[in-house]
Amino acid sequence: MDKNKQILLAKRPKGTPDKDTFKFAVKDIIKPRSGEVLIRTLYVSVDPYMRGRMIDAPSYVAPFELNKVIDGGAIGEVVTSESSHFSEGDIVIGGFGWQTYYTAKEDEVRKIDKDIAPISTHLGILGMTGLTAYFGLLEIGKPKEGETVVVSGAAGAVGSVVGQIAKIKGAKVVGIAGTDEKIKYLKEELHFDEAINYKKTEDIKHDLAKACPDGVDVYFDNVGGDISDAVFTLLNKFARVSVCGAISSYNLEKQDVGPRVQTVLIKKSALMQGFTVGDYSERFNEGATKLAQWLNEGKLSYEETMKEGFENIPDAFLDLFRGNNIGKLLVKVAEPSNE
Amino acid sequence: MDKNKQILLAKRPKGTPDKDTFKFAVKDIIKPRSGEVLIRTLYVSVDPYMRGRMIDAPSYVAPFELNKVIDGGAIGEVVTSESSHFSEGDIVIGGFGWQTYYTAKEDEVRKIDKDIAPISTHLGILGMTGLTAYFGLLEIGKPKEGETVVVSGAAGAVGSVVGQIAKIKGAKVVGIAGTDEKIKYLKEELHFDEAINYKKTEDIKHDLAKACPDGVDVYFDNVGGDISDAVFTLLNKFARVSVCGAISSYNLEKQDVGPRVQTVLIKKSALMQGFTVGDYSERFNEGATKLAQWLNEGKLSYEETMKEGFENIPDAFLDLFRGNNIGKLLVKVAEPSNE
Repeated sequence: MDKNKQILLAKRPKGTPDKDTFKFAVKDIIKPRSGEVLIRTLYVSVDPYMRGRMIDAPSYVAPFELNKVIDGGAIGEVVTSESSHFSEGDIVIGGFGWQTYYTAKEDEVRKIDKDIAPISTHLGILGMTGLTAYFGLLEIGKPKEGETVVVSGAAGAVGSVVGQIAKIKGAKVVGIAGTDEKIKYLKEELHFDEAINYKKTEDIKHDLAKACPDGVDVYFDNVGGDISDAVFTLLNKFARVSVCGAISSYNLEKQDVGPRVQTVLIKKSALMQGFTVGDYSERFNEGATKLAQWLNEGKLSYEETMKEGFENIPDAFLDLFRGNNIGKLLVKVAEPSNE
Repeated sequence: MDKNKQILLAKRPKGTPDKDTFKFAVKDIIKPRSGEVLIRTLYVSVDPYMRGRMIDAPSYVAPFELNKVIDGGAIGEVVTSESSHFSEGDIVIGGFGWQTYYTAKEDEVRKIDKDIAPISTHLGILGMTGLTAYFGLLEIGKPKEGETVVVSGAAGAVGSVVGQIAKIKGAKVVGIAGTDEKIKYLKEELHFDEAINYKKTEDIKHDLAKACPDGVDVYFDNVGGDISDAVFTLLNKFARVSVCGAISSYNLEKQDVGPRVQTVLIKKSALMQGFTVGDYSERFNEGATKLAQWLNEGKLSYEETMKEGFENIPDAFLDLFRGNNIGKLLVKVAEPSNE
């Protein structure tokens, strides 16, 4: 009989994680009991926030446990159902993470609609990624028509959706990303007004000032660090900074230090607010409905970087910190049986 | 005839201002024309924000001009009126600043009510100082009953009002200040729940954690710097930080650098918002009415540190950065004629 392959947290990384952060294990598949389903994993999501869970410090989600499966968003297919709510072949989503099989209680997963868009989008633009962009931009950034919105990590899973929603709202959108391919994607595919390759500029402040002649009204921050320092120098009166991520700091071994923001915030009467998508969990239906509508209307597009093979999940995760991927980074673990 | 004594900005300070930042001048008194009044200055306000106006950089108020009178809040008495709106002996408030006489257009000043409280309170608890505390705490901090509110610069003009309003709202209030006299004032006069002398503690984080066993829900920040860094380590989920001032940084000659706040804001879904009292100018009446009511009900008390003599204004201003004063720092320039 088939076995359940798992990827465990082998040790807590100091600095950038590497292959030794993880280890593989093989376990017997647990037969589902009444009220349970056995799921075969199809897609696994790898996300920057998972880096934070690898250390043992208080955060908004509990840290991963050593020698346990790395959990996180995943999509699978029901292969055996002992629940009246699920049938064999149902496609489900849940937080069962980096393993090839999972025996779930029926309330741990939910069915997803296969007809709206490819099922993998439920881990991306129609899932947590899209909802992160939707609520973080609209509830904190609150872009108004004609305002200037700057997005860092702009070609990433969240940033690319943020920029497009800001365009829908009538804002001028400036993206910051780190490869020419990403810049091309932002300008040609997503129709950002301006896009800056921070790795190729000699003076990010200068390039930003040129791209934002009317200053910055909304900054959606995925990266923190020097890039955010530069954006702060351009904030307008009553600017809003939606703090979603700080990937520049996740692998730092020393304290992340930079210019203090207090004086800018006072001078500009500016707001800076951190959030996680879970803060808006009661409104997920609203957000998902709106995102699906925009997707169907052709107002939103998305890109996926799809890696193949369970064994490649750790490397896909490490890719997040190499800055190579465009859009949502996923690993395809298996084919659905009916495709 | 009497002359108009003035204090001018002699040069823009680098680092801490000193006596050479200012120079004295004597001018003829300008006779009021139709629609104008001649005002004799009684009280002058000295405030930390004025330091920001001494440098030539974009801010929320224009920088002071070199060789011009330092402007700022002041109270005076009408000695000659060529306006139907004012009579001799009226007590008025305006931004005419550091000079013994001022010839004002009638819309530059407004009459104040001498009966509510001593007239000097209109530069303090019933004026911009009180309004800064009122709107910054209630509109950004939004303390709820039972929450923990931390105030830095707690014995200062703004901080002492913030703490008292937070108590009125049913919060637990922890003050941070820098002398034993201030600590005694906060605990014994203002009934703060806890007060920490940051100059006497060996470990501010430790003392704060002890004073805030349930963490920090609201932080009203008057100081920035190391003290704020320490408070940030204790923020609760959904904490609000009202950024009013950063006096620790005003005299720094190099860039103000410290731990970046992004990661904390994300982990705690916390909000940090800068403001200046002018953001709420349309609601000043509401705030002033409420502050006067609380004052009359005995729910608010205030302290003034009153210096005497026009010549001592620069030294009073420099005192702000020596951290010696409790409550509102004012200079009495002259006696009202009818007292």
